[in-house]
Amino acid sequence: MIKHIELSKAYRLLNHGPVVLLSAAHEGKRDIMAVAWNMPLNFNPAQLLVVLDKTSSTRKLVEASGTFAISLPTRSQVDVIMNVGSISASQLPSQDKFSHWNLSVTPATHINAPLLDGCVGWLECKVIPEPHNQETYDLFIAEVVAAYADERVFSNGRWHFDDHDQLRTVHYTAGGAFFATGESFNVEKAATS
Amino acid sequence: MIKHIELSKAYRLLNHGPVVLLSAAHEGKRDIMAVAWNMPLNFNPAQLLVVLDKTSSTRKLVEASGTFAISLPTRSQVDVIMNVGSISASQLPSQDKFSHWNLSVTPATHINAPLLDGCVGWLECKVIPEPHNQETYDLFIAEVVAAYADERVFSNGRWHFDDHDQLRTVHYTAGGAFFATGESFNVEKAATS
Repeated sequence: MIKHIELSKAYRLLNHGPVVLLSAAHEGKRDIMAVAWNMPLNFNPAQLLVVLDKTSSTRKLVEASGTFAISLPTRSQVDVIMNVGSISASQLPSQDKFSHWNLSVTPATHINAPLLDGCVGWLECKVIPEPHNQETYDLFIAEVVAAYADERVFSNGRWHFDDHDQLRTVHYTAGGAFFATGESFNVEKAATS
Repeated sequence: MIKHIELSKAYRLLNHGPVVLLSAAHEGKRDIMAVAWNMPLNFNPAQLLVVLDKTSSTRKLVEASGTFAISLPTRSQVDVIMNVGSISASQLPSQDKFSHWNLSVTPATHINAPLLDGCVGWLECKVIPEPHNQETYDLFIAEVVAAYADERVFSNGRWHFDDHDQLRTVHYTAGGAFFATGESFNVEKAATS
């Protein structure tokens, strides 16, 4: 079951540093890419950061629409991450990654962007225009306007992957090398004396 | 053995999204904090981003010195992460987290900041002044001027934790809940047809 996440807790979907998929749409075009360089920026209002290279065709749709969606893919979707992350839509006969790889999507509700099915978390985002950051650093700041997660692995503000190994989120390093999100553990706060 | 990392590969220390420790020093004061909100920003020049709350006393040293160090702590150091991440130096009798918790450090070589011993990676950083980002978003952009890693778990540009479970990097969510960096796997690029 997919559940809404309170916006002030939306950062918890990204806080552990997984690689995400970023999708956008504008005037009939749609695209999706992998983004390892993402992180939360603020709790309330919920904000996040992504780095989008100027060569990316998905970035052009983000700039045109002012919106994008983040989907959190799982260990069972690593081929999708590599495909959409390493190949441009312009290299495909169909010019559309979704149809080329038969990616099933659900429309976002607050923005116009496709959410990738089979993921375990989703964030709908509106760009906060910061032209200097976008031009100089390829850095985009956005406000999260809706967030959802699959309650099998995220509930009460916590990820819990122990019974769902194939639904673990994943972390990217380079050259096709990934790590699954690993063993969980809890640490108590220290005393000050 | 600690080895220098080529600056254009420094992003690989952070790419998988671990929580890091950030330390800084200025005019005889030194401090250290945990930073979950960090990410690479560019390959060459090597740049990274961190979010530092205005209430942080470590931030004041970063602003005064224009530099900071990043240390990548391991699973065996999670108590240190929680301690320095949840308690302010001002709450301690000694007003110094390093002496309070007996944290052993090595001086950075390109900047004035303490590197935490026992970690598995280190980045020496110089702030690129961006006052609007710093004031509005608590966001600091920095250039990496030196990088090192423990070759037991990082060599040839890759992390490899399989034989060193206690040296795994860790990922933070909230409320004392961590994940270890988990199982590694490699995925081939797809063909376009």
